[in-house]
Amino acid sequence: MADLDMQPFDTQIDLALEAKELVESGSGMPIPGVTSHVSEEDGIKVTQLQVMTEEGSRALGKMKGHYVTLEVPGLRSQDTDLQDKVATKFAKYFETFLERIGIGRTAKVLIVGLGNWNVTPDALGPIVVENVMVTRHFFELMPDQVAPGYRAVSAVAPGVLGITGIESSEIVQGIVERTKPDVIIAIDALASRSLDRVNTTIQIADTGIHPGSGIGNKRRGLTKEILGIPVIAIGVPTVVYASTIVTNTIELMKNHFEQIKGDTNQILGLINQMNENERLQLVKEVLNPIGHDLLVTPKEIDQFIEDIGNIIASGLNASLHEAVDTTNVAAYTH
Amino acid sequence: MADLDMQPFDTQIDLALEAKELVESGSGMPIPGVTSHVSEEDGIKVTQLQVMTEEGSRALGKMKGHYVTLEVPGLRSQDTDLQDKVATKFAKYFETFLERIGIGRTAKVLIVGLGNWNVTPDALGPIVVENVMVTRHFFELMPDQVAPGYRAVSAVAPGVLGITGIESSEIVQGIVERTKPDVIIAIDALASRSLDRVNTTIQIADTGIHPGSGIGNKRRGLTKEILGIPVIAIGVPTVVYASTIVTNTIELMKNHFEQIKGDTNQILGLINQMNENERLQLVKEVLNPIGHDLLVTPKEIDQFIEDIGNIIASGLNASLHEAVDTTNVAAYTH
Amino acid sequence: MADLDMQPFDTQIDLALEAKELVESGSGMPIPGVTSHVSEEDGIKVTQLQVMTEEGSRALGKMKGHYVTLEVPGLRSQDTDLQDKVATKFAKYFETFLERIGIGRTAKVLIVGLGNWNVTPDALGPIVVENVMVTRHFFELMPDQVAPGYRAVSAVAPGVLGITGIESSEIVQGIVERTKPDVIIAIDALASRSLDRVNTTIQIADTGIHPGSGIGNKRRGLTKEILGIPVIAIGVPTVVYASTIVTNTIELMKNHFEQIKGDTNQILGLINQMNENERLQLVKEVLNPIGHDLLVTPKEIDQFIEDIGNIIASGLNASLHEAVDTTNVAAYTH
Amino acid sequence: MADLDMQPFDTQIDLALEAKELVESGSGMPIPGVTSHVSEEDGIKVTQLQVMTEEGSRALGKMKGHYVTLEVPGLRSQDTDLQDKVATKFAKYFETFLERIGIGRTAKVLIVGLGNWNVTPDALGPIVVENVMVTRHFFELMPDQVAPGYRAVSAVAPGVLGITGIESSEIVQGIVERTKPDVIIAIDALASRSLDRVNTTIQIADTGIHPGSGIGNKRRGLTKEILGIPVIAIGVPTVVYASTIVTNTIELMKNHFEQIKGDTNQILGLINQMNENERLQLVKEVLNPIGHDLLVTPKEIDQFIEDIGNIIASGLNASLHEAVDTTNVAAYTH
Repeated sequence: MADLDMQPFDTQIDLALEAKELVESGSGMPIPGVTSHVSEEDGIKVTQLQVMTEEGSRALGKMKGHYVTLEVPGLRSQDTDLQDKVATKFAKYFETFLERIGIGRTAKVLIVGLGNWNVTPDALGPIVVENVMVTRHFFELMPDQVAPGYRAVSAVAPGVLGITGIESSEIVQGIVERTKPDVIIAIDALASRSLDRVNTTIQIADTGIHPGSGIGNKRRGLTKEILGIPVIAIGVPTVVYASTIVTNTIELMKNHFEQIKGDTNQILGLINQMNENERLQLVKEVLNPIGHDLLVTPKEIDQFIEDIGNIIASGLNASLHEAVDTTNVAAYTH
Repeated sequence: MADLDMQPFDTQIDLALEAKELVESGSGMPIPGVTSHVSEEDGIKVTQLQVMTEEGSRALGKMKGHYVTLEVPGLRSQDTDLQDKVATKFAKYFETFLERIGIGRTAKVLIVGLGNWNVTPDALGPIVVENVMVTRHFFELMPDQVAPGYRAVSAVAPGVLGITGIESSEIVQGIVERTKPDVIIAIDALASRSLDRVNTTIQIADTGIHPGSGIGNKRRGLTKEILGIPVIAIGVPTVVYASTIVTNTIELMKNHFEQIKGDTNQILGLINQMNENERLQLVKEVLNPIGHDLLVTPKEIDQFIEDIGNIIASGLNASLHEAVDTTNVAAYTH
Repeated sequence: MADLDMQPFDTQIDLALEAKELVESGSGMPIPGVTSHVSEEDGIKVTQLQVMTEEGSRALGKMKGHYVTLEVPGLRSQDTDLQDKVATKFAKYFETFLERIGIGRTAKVLIVGLGNWNVTPDALGPIVVENVMVTRHFFELMPDQVAPGYRAVSAVAPGVLGITGIESSEIVQGIVERTKPDVIIAIDALASRSLDRVNTTIQIADTGIHPGSGIGNKRRGLTKEILGIPVIAIGVPTVVYASTIVTNTIELMKNHFEQIKGDTNQILGLINQMNENERLQLVKEVLNPIGHDLLVTPKEIDQFIEDIGNIIASGLNASLHEAVDTTNVAAYTH
Repeated sequence: MADLDMQPFDTQIDLALEAKELVESGSGMPIPGVTSHVSEEDGIKVTQLQVMTEEGSRALGKMKGHYVTLEVPGLRSQDTDLQDKVATKFAKYFETFLERIGIGRTAKVLIVGLGNWNVTPDALGPIVVENVMVTRHFFELMPDQVAPGYRAVSAVAPGVLGITGIESSEIVQGIVERTKPDVIIAIDALASRSLDRVNTTIQIADTGIHPGSGIGNKRRGLTKEILGIPVIAIGVPTVVYASTIVTNTIELMKNHFEQIKGDTNQILGLINQMNENERLQLVKEVLNPIGHDLLVTPKEIDQFIEDIGNIIASGLNASLHEAVDTTNVAAYTH
C-alpha cells in the first residue's frame, strides 16, 4: 500500500485545510512550501494557509495560492447573534483577501452561484446569488447617478449540466466575454472529509474552481487560465461521503482508546496501523462495489443552507461596497 | 382622439390575436397585410395569423411573421386529460411551425426560459427549463452513443435584471456565442388584455422577443438581428392590467345591453361611444396617477403556472425529438 | 333596484371599514349604532370601529364588536424600515385590543392559521403559524423552568377542506377541547373591495371567523358560540374580485370627471346614477355567467405575503409575551 | 457485555426487519414467537413478519403485530416505470393488510401525515397528505351523490411540537373525537440502521406509532390504546445515524475480509469479535460526546422524498377506493 502515500487520494479534497491534515497525518511532518497561521476569536477559528511552491502544491494536491478558512462549530445551533458575527468576520477577511491579491475598490465583480436549486445541499450558490445586492445595471443605465461607495456587481446562477446541457464554465465564459467583469467570485457547495465541518466551515481561495471539485459534475473549471480574470472561490462543505464518516470515526476511536490507555493495536487490529488515507481506500473498496458510498448531508440541511447562504451574501455586500457595512448589511439581504 | 387610431396603444400588446381584435374593433374592418385562419377541435381553438407586410405590421403594432395561438378556456378546470390533449396539439403545431420556417430535424436548439423564479406569474420560463429534456451534453461528450431520433437541446434560465444586474439578452448572447445553437426557443410570461385569456392561451411566434414585451423589464430583445439565429417565442399570458379588466368589462356590459335591446348610449353615456382603445386610455388616465393600475393574476396562479409549464415542456420534448412522441412524453418530464 | 338598499350586498364584505364606506356611500349618512375613530401616524392610518347595536350590525352586515384596521399603502414598496414600524404599531394596538376585551396576560393562546399552503394568496395563516414563537410545550413539560414574561402559546394550521376533507372549524374544535386554550387568535386571508387595500391592510376583530368569510370555502365559523372561548380574527385582504376592480374604477372615474367639472351623467350615463352597490350587482350580472368574475391578486403576491406574514408574527410575539418587545422581536421570527 | 444481548439496543429501531436482523445476528438463531416470510418479484423484496407472542415482542423490541416491508433498491435510480410498479404492489399488499386485520371496505379512514414540512427528510407525511384523495366532505355534505366504490377518507398533517407547541398525538386525538373515523393510517419518516434502506423501503404495521419512533421528538404515540381505533403505520426510513453507517461498514468489511480469507481478528482486532450491537454502543460512546452522531440523509433527498410520497399516495388511493385502481390512479395524485 506504500504507493498510496505518493498519490495521496483518489477523491478530490475540497478543503485545503483537510488536505493538509490528511497529508501531515500520513507523513507526520509539515509540508514544505505550505505555510499556515491559525487564530481564534468569538468561537470562530480562522486558518490562513498559503501554498507557495509547486512542490507544496503537489504534496497537498491543491493549487498554489491563498486559502482562508473560517470554522464555526456553533453555526449548527442556529444562533442568530453568532450568524451576524460570522458575517462580519467573513466580510473583514474577504475584504483583506481582495486587497492582498490586488483587487481594487472599483473592480467590477461577477458573482457566480454554482449548483442546483433543486438539490438542497447543492443550492448554496443559487441562494447567495438570490440574496446578494446587484448594482451593475445602475452603472450601465445611469452611471452618473450611482451613489459613491458602490461598485458594479452582477450575479448569475448558471445551473448544472443535467438541467442545462451546458457546462457551467461555458455559460460563465460567455457571460464574461459579454459583460467584461474584472474578477469573478464563485460560490460552490463542497464535500468535506469530516461530518463536523459540514455547514460550519467557509473556505475562501484565490485559485478558482477546478474540474471535479464541489458537489456537481464539473468537467471544466472556472480559472484565470480559462476566463482571463482572477477567480476567487468561496466554498462551504455541505455533504460528506459515507466512507469518510467511517474513517473519521475510526480515527476518533483510535484517539479514544489511546486516551484511556487501551492497546489500540489489539482493539483495532491492522486498521489501527494504517494511515487515514489507506483506511479510506479500504473502506471505499468495501462500500463502492455495493453502491453504499453515498454522499450524505445532515437532516437539518434546509435550515443550514439558508443560514449560511445569508451569511455569505451579507458578508459579500459589506466587503464589496464601502457604503455598506456590518451595521446596515441586513437591509440589503432578504 | 383620432390620432389614437393611428398609433393604437401605448401599452405593449403581447398577443397578436388581441392586437388584431383591438385594431379591428377600432376600424371595423380587416387589416390589410394580415391574414388569419381559425380552427377548433377538442375545446382547443387555434388561430394562425400571419403579418405579411410592413403596412400590416404597423397597423397591428406587431412584427412581420407567423403567430399561432392556442386558446383553451377549459385549462382553468385542472383536467389532466385536457392537459394531455393540449400538450399533444401544441407539439403538433410546434413541429409544423418549425418545418414551415425551415428549422430542420437536426438543428441544435437552445431553450431560454425568461422570467423570475420568485415571482410566481413570471416563473413560466424557468419552470419549462427545469422540466424540458436536455441532450446537448450527450452530443458533446459521447456523440457516437446518442440514440437516433434525438437532437442537441440545451436550456437556460438567465434570470432577471433585478437579480443578476445583467440584461437577460446579454446573458443569452454570451451563451449563444459560446455554444453555437442553430435556433432559440424563448419562453416568456405575457400580459393579456383579457382576464379570460390568462393561463388559458399559448402563443407561438417566429418574431423573437422584443424590448418591453412580457412581464419583466426588458430593455433589449432576443431577436435574429441581435443573436444571428432565428428566435421562436412561446408566450403565455399570466397577468392582466387592472385597467384592461375594466375596459374589457365595459365592452361586455355594452354587448349585454345591446342583446337585451337597451339604449346603450343612455346607459353607458359617452363611454359607450368610445372605441376600446380610447376607453383604455381614459381608464389608465384615472388609475395611473394613484398607482391603481396594478398587474394582477388569478388567485390560483401557483397551480396554473405549474400545469401550463408542464404542457409546454412535454410539447417541446415531443416536437423536438422524433424518438419522443405524445405517448411516451410523460416519462421525460417531472 | 330599491330593494338592494335594504339588503346591501350578496358578496360577503370582509373588512368592516369597507362595509361602512359602502353603506354610507349608498345612504349618504352615518350608520346608527356604529362609531369610528381614525388616526394617522408614520404613514399608518388606524381606524377603530365599533358596532354597538343590533341595528348597526344589520345595517353594516357585520357582527357586533370591535374592529381595528391598519392601512399602510407604503407596504407595497418593500421598505424594511416601514415593515418594522408596522409590526411595532400592530403589536401596540393588538396589546390594547387584548386588554380592552379582557384577555389577561397569562391567558393561554391558540393561534390558528387558516388557509392553504399551496395557494400563495391564501397562505397567510400558515406562514404566520410557521413564524410565530410557540411556548405551550415548555409550560406543559417543564412549567417550573419557563422564564417570567412568557405565556403559553400554541399554533396550528388546520389546512383547507379540499386537502383534508374536514372543515377547519371542526379540526380547531377538536384541538380546543383537548388543549383548553383561553382564547383563539385566527389569521385569515381576506377579499377586499378595493385593489389598493390588497396586501396593505390589517384588520383585527373580536368577532371570530364567520362562514363564508375570507378566501376559502368555509361552511362553519370559528366563534365563541361554537368554541366556547373568545376568538380574535386577524385578517389581511390579499385578493379582490374582478367585478370590484371595475366598480371601484367607475367610482374613481366619476370623481375624476366631477373634479374636472365634466357632466358625469352625460359621460357615464345611467351608470353614474347608480350607487356603488347597484353598480356592483350590474357588473356581476355581466361577468358571472361567463366565468369572468375571478378573484385576482397582484403579481408580486409571493413577496407581499411573506412580508406581511412576518409583520404579523413579529407583532404577535411582541404583544403576547411581556419579555419580548419590538427591539428584540426579530430574534424570534425567521 | 453479555447484558447487551438481553436488552439489545438503546436506540429505537424503527424497522422490524432490522430489529430481527440485529437480534438474530447477535444470537445466531431465530427468535421464538416471530415468523417471517420473504418473497421477491420485479426487483421488489417483500418481507411479511409477524410478532405473535410477548416473548417475541420483548426479544425483538417491537410490538406484537403484523409488519410488511417492501424493499426496492432500484428506487434510487428514479425510474418512473419502477415507481409505478411499486405503487401497484404497495396498493395490493396494503389492501390485503386491511382485510387481514379486519378493516372493511366502507370503514372511514383518517390519514395522518406526521412530520415537518420544512425539514425535507421529515416531510414525507405532509407530502402524502397533500397528494392523497380526500372524500369525507362529499360524504358529509352530499352523501346521496357520492359514486359507489369510494369510502370516506380525510387527511391531516398535524405539524411538529416545535412549530405548534402541541404533541401531534393530542391534535390527532382531538380530531378523532370530533370526526369519528374507524381507522387511522399514520405516515411517518423513520431512521434506518442501514444507509441502503434509506428511501428504498416501505414498512406497513398494524401496531400504531410509538413514542420515540420516527424522526421527530414524539413523547406520546398514536395507538389504539390512546385513540380507541386501530392505527396502521406506514413508515419510510429517510435518515440514518452516522454511528450506524460506521457499524454497518465495519460489518461489511468483516464480510469482505472473510470472503477473501483474511484473518479478520488480526485485521479488525477486538472490533471483529463484538456483535453488531456492542459495536454500535462503542461507536456511539466515541461520537456522542463530541456531537458527531448526526442524523444524515442522502444528498438527493428532495427528489427521493417527492417520489416515495407519490408512490404511497397513489397506492393508498388505489387500495382505499374500489373505484380507483392502478390504471387510473395517476389521475388522482398531483
